[in-house]
Amino acid sequence: MSGKKYIIEGAGLPNWSNPISHAVVVNNMCFISGQLAINSHGNYIQASIKNETNLAFSNFFAALSNAGFSKEDVVFIDIAFDDLKDLPVVNAIFMKFFDEGKRPARTIYQAEALPFGGKIKITGTAVKDLTS
Amino acid sequence: MSGKKYIIEGAGLPNWSNPISHAVVVNNMCFISGQLAINSHGNYIQASIKNETNLAFSNFFAALSNAGFSKEDVVFIDIAFDDLKDLPVVNAIFMKFFDEGKRPARTIYQAEALPFGGKIKITGTAVKDLTS
Amino acid sequence: MSGKKYIIEGAGLPNWSNPISHAVVVNNMCFISGQLAINSHGNYIQASIKNETNLAFSNFFAALSNAGFSKEDVVFIDIAFDDLKDLPVVNAIFMKFFDEGKRPARTIYQAEALPFGGKIKITGTAVKDLTS
Repeated sequence: MSGKKYIIEGAGLPNWSNPISHAVVVNNMCFISGQLAINSHGNYIQASIKNETNLAFSNFFAALSNAGFSKEDVVFIDIAFDDLKDLPVVNAIFMKFFDEGKRPARTIYQAEALPFGGKIKITGTAVKDLTS
Repeated sequence: MSGKKYIIEGAGLPNWSNPISHAVVVNNMCFISGQLAINSHGNYIQASIKNETNLAFSNFFAALSNAGFSKEDVVFIDIAFDDLKDLPVVNAIFMKFFDEGKRPARTIYQAEALPFGGKIKITGTAVKDLTS
Repeated sequence: MSGKKYIIEGAGLPNWSNPISHAVVVNNMCFISGQLAINSHGNYIQASIKNETNLAFSNFFAALSNAGFSKEDVVFIDIAFDDLKDLPVVNAIFMKFFDEGKRPARTIYQAEALPFGGKIKITGTAVKDLTS
């Protein structure tokens, strides 16, 4: 079991000014901060739901990767929408990232507002399977 | 410790079209997807808050059961409301399902909207106590 | 590894009427209920965002402490806002509580409403590092 790690910067991660870690690793678990459509310079990139979703997932997976986890380890995802009408577009992207039969549990809802006025925020938990 | 499991279908679970797992089990933990008032055919059943809450909990407990967990293992529950005025009705049901003194931690809030225009969404985490 | 614990009352904790636990401990993990600006008598104290945030954090840390955990064990925090414009004030407090380089992962959003009409709700997860 590897030691505790705070992922603050790393390849592909936004250089943000938030007073938080992108991810924290402890005892084979990885807790990932809410990821938005923010580019590497820390700027929110207002775009189509497709592009915001891809950018938010890119940051999510970068946090995961810098933490030493892979997308197969993701067991739970929390997606906040600015508008739930965007769900079909998000689902199409989601299905490409996660293989059928091995998809995480998920919860979704429409927030009144997301940081920067973003369209989507993706948070989640990854756990390494100690039995495999 | 049992191996990783993705609960996609099972007794009492809605046959839904969502590209996710109802629950994922890893290392004695169970992560449950947001459960709504959806019947076994995957259709949202608009009803009173009492009936929607009972149906959402029925799906929540079905996910838990198919995952090999019991309600005593539930350590955290996240309930999203369409209207927090419904809290007394939800609390009455909640108190019947979870025994006094052994109730999970919980967080509640009012979302701007829930999938299908539902009144309530229930998500949570269960963990088997390895010391018992 | 200590046994399962349900934290229902304790030093510094609101004496609330909610049918839930303030925190649940299992296998070196601690799940904390959504904490609001509620005083020791269980009454919501409407105040400035600064004061509500300090009171909510006071309850959050009291739950943690009664559970046998410290703020260094906090790996994830979920903060719901009534108004995301309050973020700078909340961040200033957050930075005082958590030391740079060891801050938890975090997710934030604006809910349509929080219990009691509160301005902020703080939930989170703590995990003891078994490798240290």
